[in-house]
Amino acid sequence: SKRYTITLLPGDGIGPEVISVATNVLKLAASLEGIEFDFQEMLVGGAALDSTGLPLPAETLSAAKQSDAVLLGAIGGYKWDKNEKHLKPETGLLQLRAGLQVFANLRPATVLPQLVDASTLKKEVAEGVDLMVVRELTGGIYFGKPRGFSVNENGQEIGFNTEVYATHEIDRIARVAFETARKRRGKLCSVDKANVLEASIFWRKRVMAIASEYPDVELSHMYVDNAAMQLVRDPKQFDTIVTNNIFGDILSDEASMITGSIGMLPSASLGESGPGLFEPIHGSAPDIAGQDKANPLATVLSAAMLLKYGLGEENAAKRIEAAVLDTLSRGYRTGDIYSSGNKLVGCKEMGEEVLKSV
Amino acid sequence: SKRYTITLLPGDGIGPEVISVATNVLKLAASLEGIEFDFQEMLVGGAALDSTGLPLPAETLSAAKQSDAVLLGAIGGYKWDKNEKHLKPETGLLQLRAGLQVFANLRPATVLPQLVDASTLKKEVAEGVDLMVVRELTGGIYFGKPRGFSVNENGQEIGFNTEVYATHEIDRIARVAFETARKRRGKLCSVDKANVLEASIFWRKRVMAIASEYPDVELSHMYVDNAAMQLVRDPKQFDTIVTNNIFGDILSDEASMITGSIGMLPSASLGESGPGLFEPIHGSAPDIAGQDKANPLATVLSAAMLLKYGLGEENAAKRIEAAVLDTLSRGYRTGDIYSSGNKLVGCKEMGEEVLKSV
Ligand SMILES: CC(C)[C@H](C(=O)O)[C@@H](O)C(=O)O
Ligand SMILES: CC(C)[C@H](C(=O)O)[C@@H](O)C(=O)O
Repeated sequence: SKRYTITLLPGDGIGPEVISVATNVLKLAASLEGIEFDFQEMLVGGAALDSTGLPLPAETLSAAKQSDAVLLGAIGGYKWDKNEKHLKPETGLLQLRAGLQVFANLRPATVLPQLVDASTLKKEVAEGVDLMVVRELTGGIYFGKPRGFSVNENGQEIGFNTEVYATHEIDRIARVAFETARKRRGKLCSVDKANVLEASIFWRKRVMAIASEYPDVELSHMYVDNAAMQLVRDPKQFDTIVTNNIFGDILSDEASMITGSIGMLPSASLGESGPGLFEPIHGSAPDIAGQDKANPLATVLSAAMLLKYGLGEENAAKRIEAAVLDTLSRGYRTGDIYSSGNKLVGCKEMGEEVLKSV
Repeated sequence: SKRYTITLLPGDGIGPEVISVATNVLKLAASLEGIEFDFQEMLVGGAALDSTGLPLPAETLSAAKQSDAVLLGAIGGYKWDKNEKHLKPETGLLQLRAGLQVFANLRPATVLPQLVDASTLKKEVAEGVDLMVVRELTGGIYFGKPRGFSVNENGQEIGFNTEVYATHEIDRIARVAFETARKRRGKLCSVDKANVLEASIFWRKRVMAIASEYPDVELSHMYVDNAAMQLVRDPKQFDTIVTNNIFGDILSDEASMITGSIGMLPSASLGESGPGLFEPIHGSAPDIAGQDKANPLATVLSAAMLLKYGLGEENAAKRIEAAVLDTLSRGYRTGDIYSSGNKLVGCKEMGEEVLKSV
């Protein structure tokens, strides 16, 4: 039987609740495929700040690096909102991404037939949306230098950041995106602001260069402002989107909201080699933390991505995906996706129902 | 009688068609308030490139600077898409904004009762949306230096830009935003990415400092990724939004698409003093250019903003706004906002109907 080491990072807010449910589902689905796990739970984010003074303790990063995959709940909360930048929970997440070198962030946004009514978009617009945002995750303005605060030549205070991309950073994310599109419907849309930014002109140039390796994938380019519009106008036009870190942050959140059920959406962050990082795209939801109200399905589906993209265990991944769909078809809903006629359940009960469907 | 000089910049694509309609409406509405105009038509964008080799000829900028207000149609088209950056039509627009120092871009997004069905959002979500994006227009990553192409310490090619804001740039746009919110429903939401970017941390600090001058305005802060979601989830929560140049580019386009009728949306770009720049938010639509299909109402409403914000002629502005609503109520629609039961008209005929309603 196969054995993998998984680092669990429950984090803050609803993190621990959803991680607990997802871990149980992961164990059961994998065991049916003869897979076993060693789990190691570590601190990150606000939880780590409170007990170690750092948002990403060195032990956490080294444990994560030595494991086969990392499953994260959520980080952040009002409590730490006023912290200085290097002591923010978010900084721990950015350090984790950088430390694991997970440069490719895959964020699917899918409207499930069972949940089409959850979208604020008209049924005919939302129905059938199935897109994937491939976001560059360890470069661009998030990490670019120089950055900071200073005084300019007129004696005025300034705050500044650098948007910068190098050849290999664009080439590798482009390849992941073309590979992703190839396994989907064969259409890739690269989003940039090449009518204004040099960083985008260079991005577009490299994406076009890499395109020659993928003649079977249909490549298009779109400006980011237009992409933000087109996601609202007709999200079905998109298959795979590839974009930089900051545009990906914005567009993937917009795309997720278009599905109406961000409590359902997982993500995978992958590197060249080494463990991937898997996490729901929703946040820590401090207002409902500890109340057994959170929707655990985004984390459960992140566990499925962990199996598929992190460990190459497609069969076990499919068991989880099928179990989630079955549970929804049986009418179970947490509050965020509830509509009348369905059965309202809490986080734990949703987990138990998914286990029954595995 | 009062007399103003207006620079008309028809530009490219559908620009000349919509400017022609808007100019006629502007003339009539103003004349009923005893206002007369001297119009001077100048070249910008692709049209200017074709006949002078530059996207913003010096004569155009100096005419614009000497006039009381500038009305622009649209710029750009496939023909110039491959031009180098300094020879792109878009560069002419950026030079015009910088040359006129119009740092404050006001972009209303309103769902008119007559057009609520045009939105892809459900009726109950779209109905009553009435928000204003105040976008910083002459700073940030659009103009920040250093920028360009280079080679990094590993010998890799790079493309880079600088996001930078100085105290006075933030302070002046914040004041415009607070003033705008005060005249609306008294709520201002400042959008940034202060959990990641120093430029945003500084932005938030200055906006909070200026807030003390406006105790009657309720200020909130939101991260840009969350704002992109909230615009889809519940756009009615917003009154006035203030944000930087690039986030404003993205969010104002998203907001405009939420109304479902970007052919209807005007914008105003204002400086500390000197002429303002008024333009529809839609582009040059080269695919329908010259076919008398364009919706001229966004430009007509931009002429209303010109009267109100550019010349302080509120009464004449109100005449135009009322005429547009009346024309819609009488059932006239261009193709982009047409739904069955209405009267489909072209650009010119729409203009004639608006003139009847003035
Ligand atoms: C928490 C924050 C730093 C993070 C980001 O901006 O990347 C989040 O918004 C995300 O998208 O995962
Ligand atoms: C044409 C382009 C340079 C421009 C911008 O990015 O500002 C446009 O998208 C806009 O929003 O007016």
